[in-house]
Amino acid sequence: MSLDHPKSLRQAAEAIRSGVISSQEMTLAALSRAKASRSRLNAFIDIDEEHALACAKAADDMRTSDASLGPLHGVPLAHKDMFDGEGRLTGCGSLIRAGHRAKTTSTVLARLGTAGSFSIGRLNMSEFAMGPTGHNHHHGRVLNPIDPDRITGGSSSGSGSAVGAGVVLAALGSDTGGSIRIPAACCGTVGIKPTQGRVSRHGAMPLSFSQDCIGPLAGSVEDAWLILSLISGPDGLDPTCLDAPLRPLLDNIEGVRIGLAKGLFQQTLSDDVGEAVQTVGRLLDRDGVQVADAPFADLEAVTELANAVAMTEAAAVHFDSMRDAPDQFGSQVRMRLSQGLAIPGPLYVRALQIRSVMLARFLEESFGACDVLILPTMPFIAPLDRDVDVGAGSRMNEVISAMTALTRPFSYLGLPVVTVPVAASREGLPIALQLVARPWREDLAASVARHLERALALSRFTAKAAT
Amino acid sequence: MSLDHPKSLRQAAEAIRSGVISSQEMTLAALSRAKASRSRLNAFIDIDEEHALACAKAADDMRTSDASLGPLHGVPLAHKDMFDGEGRLTGCGSLIRAGHRAKTTSTVLARLGTAGSFSIGRLNMSEFAMGPTGHNHHHGRVLNPIDPDRITGGSSSGSGSAVGAGVVLAALGSDTGGSIRIPAACCGTVGIKPTQGRVSRHGAMPLSFSQDCIGPLAGSVEDAWLILSLISGPDGLDPTCLDAPLRPLLDNIEGVRIGLAKGLFQQTLSDDVGEAVQTVGRLLDRDGVQVADAPFADLEAVTELANAVAMTEAAAVHFDSMRDAPDQFGSQVRMRLSQGLAIPGPLYVRALQIRSVMLARFLEESFGACDVLILPTMPFIAPLDRDVDVGAGSRMNEVISAMTALTRPFSYLGLPVVTVPVAASREGLPIALQLVARPWREDLAASVARHLERALALSRFTAKAAT
Repeated sequence: MSLDHPKSLRQAAEAIRSGVISSQEMTLAALSRAKASRSRLNAFIDIDEEHALACAKAADDMRTSDASLGPLHGVPLAHKDMFDGEGRLTGCGSLIRAGHRAKTTSTVLARLGTAGSFSIGRLNMSEFAMGPTGHNHHHGRVLNPIDPDRITGGSSSGSGSAVGAGVVLAALGSDTGGSIRIPAACCGTVGIKPTQGRVSRHGAMPLSFSQDCIGPLAGSVEDAWLILSLISGPDGLDPTCLDAPLRPLLDNIEGVRIGLAKGLFQQTLSDDVGEAVQTVGRLLDRDGVQVADAPFADLEAVTELANAVAMTEAAAVHFDSMRDAPDQFGSQVRMRLSQGLAIPGPLYVRALQIRSVMLARFLEESFGACDVLILPTMPFIAPLDRDVDVGAGSRMNEVISAMTALTRPFSYLGLPVVTVPVAASREGLPIALQLVARPWREDLAASVARHLERALALSRFTAKAAT
Repeated sequence: MSLDHPKSLRQAAEAIRSGVISSQEMTLAALSRAKASRSRLNAFIDIDEEHALACAKAADDMRTSDASLGPLHGVPLAHKDMFDGEGRLTGCGSLIRAGHRAKTTSTVLARLGTAGSFSIGRLNMSEFAMGPTGHNHHHGRVLNPIDPDRITGGSSSGSGSAVGAGVVLAALGSDTGGSIRIPAACCGTVGIKPTQGRVSRHGAMPLSFSQDCIGPLAGSVEDAWLILSLISGPDGLDPTCLDAPLRPLLDNIEGVRIGLAKGLFQQTLSDDVGEAVQTVGRLLDRDGVQVADAPFADLEAVTELANAVAMTEAAAVHFDSMRDAPDQFGSQVRMRLSQGLAIPGPLYVRALQIRSVMLARFLEESFGACDVLILPTMPFIAPLDRDVDVGAGSRMNEVISAMTALTRPFSYLGLPVVTVPVAASREGLPIALQLVARPWREDLAASVARHLERALALSRFTAKAAT
């Protein structure tokens, strides 16, 4: 490992703790990577060198004072630009909120701060987290570190790109219909969308309060898991955040029953994505894990319900702006909010009401004989930018639906999902799978993900992109 | 007191417990009053003599076996036809649900059953609890026991009429925008709409889950309080029902600060209703209670939000029926559900989102210097039937708004309210006031109500109507 560019959060924190490298040295290196990446990736909306170096100095000063150090002491990170920090800017990828200075600190940032970490800048994102392609009308598109002609996916576009490129080791994102999982899949990182209610959303920008989840993108399952464990848990400032302990990862996944949801998708998946599912099935089978085809309920109806809920709630959040300053939205976001404004209230209420019914049915049908369900994160690899840069045009809904077809249902159902790259396509782009578990059982999904990661030894995406 | 027609629930239970009268004798008398009232009041949708007498006999048998007896042991009651009892019919005042046989027992009926009470029949109501006038397209209007040319109010029309006429001592109703308070006010009974979340709604017909409250109508504050205390409290079958203990009534209300919300209403109140507020203020002042004018936020905006929420949720509940069998609704209910179907989802979401903001503002502004807020239940006495029998005509929304102008805001705010008759109008009709308290402080409102009841000694409405 390079001293100023460690391979994992644990290595980074250990290097600082032991004095092998100072936080300031590590932070300067991260800042330098971030600045060098600007024109190449456009992953940062803002790099705050002064703040980062002040935090790093404080971390170094604290280390010498023998204080007890958090698990991320002195480690520089960067996050999607939607988490408030008191007195600091949060722009949410928008023009409307560009000058917004926060009055409080989001619980997730506060918890990472308590753990010793700080931020070197704010990461680009789809405007108001709306948009699975990662395009941003105001701040420009973020480039995929593996192939700049391809999208990063969104809405946590900057998180996917910055982590995929190795600028930072991990970044927070948010996921309402796939916004962590899609960029993680496109950029070859791990991503975790936790169970609905596991992570406090206090101080985070709302998109759709019924489905918004905050979680990590990171270079490995271990790193993503560390971040998740730090930000999880009940919060007096967010009553929707529940007290359900995160169980530790399993060293051995032998007893875990895997369901391969391959049947449903054979027609709609691209060839290499379909093959990846089969390969992973064979690999797990070889390793003595019980693998079976899992029956899979029709997700199309669920996807439509999920979208109706999300767009209704988003239109409520942006109601005043849509009335007073519609021109300040990018065209695609404005069009989608307009669609949301027209969704009848009773349809929205019903979509929420049958959520628990759909969840019960899904758990019974698909989790009857398995603990972790495996399916692709996207039906295809990261698309070429020119194929999906559709703005508010006639292909808008088609593109959005295709990108989120496999992720959105689990947002609606509130289930935890880990996405992990498992293969490279012919083009050298990552192919990622989702590992879905029952509510609160992130541990099972992540344990299987870590097993695959180790078995496949797939470090090439991050390695290739590292600065 | 007449042996078969006691004046209070306590007297009734005590008479049975001590053997002065059997439950069967008391029940036969109640059944006889119910049957005699049918053509005169139309308060009952169904009288179930067989069931009632079987329950009464069981109560009498149990008494002689020295078992410990509940506080309502052997006491016959009757309830709005919207509370499920396993294997029994619940019609909800509708054609669509007329043959519905329930699979479970509602928590409120189960708890009254545990207390020893049973039902002699199902009380008429507005179709699906929609309609503050108490008209019912399918089952005919319920008559006001004090003046048959006047309405009972609704939607708990049968509960108001049957209790007002002394057919039963108390009855359950439900209140989503005034449906307990309005018939209580029109028929001269006490009514309690509890704090949102105090009483389980498991097994009760939903109208608007954000605002539906179940509560009692009774001849006195003591009786209403007894029923409330029996049905209150957390319930594993209804997660929206919270664990907030009901505090006991105060013997002395000296320390309670009263706010008279008279300023706002002087223009819109009929003369005698306005006078009643002043008279009550003077009476409390005379009794050494601190009385002040309470500032009052504009309730008109709140009323519109409340209605938007209620109609959106109602339209969601009846979505399938509105699609498949719209002709089976009465014209007014169908028209209102049609209006609900057209409410945009984002408006509904916002109406719910600002609820806590409006509540905080209302508590600060109106409860800053008082504990109990007093205002009329309706701006006028029970209207003449011919003035408000508007069906789905052009005056529909106007009539509904006028009837619920003073009740609906407290449904939206979720506050507990006790309504109590305090005077007679020139026409001999009751004038009722609402006593509103902070969340969970039913005890304060009810203690003041009991003080007024005692000070005013107003027994004439029930006395006049008693069979």
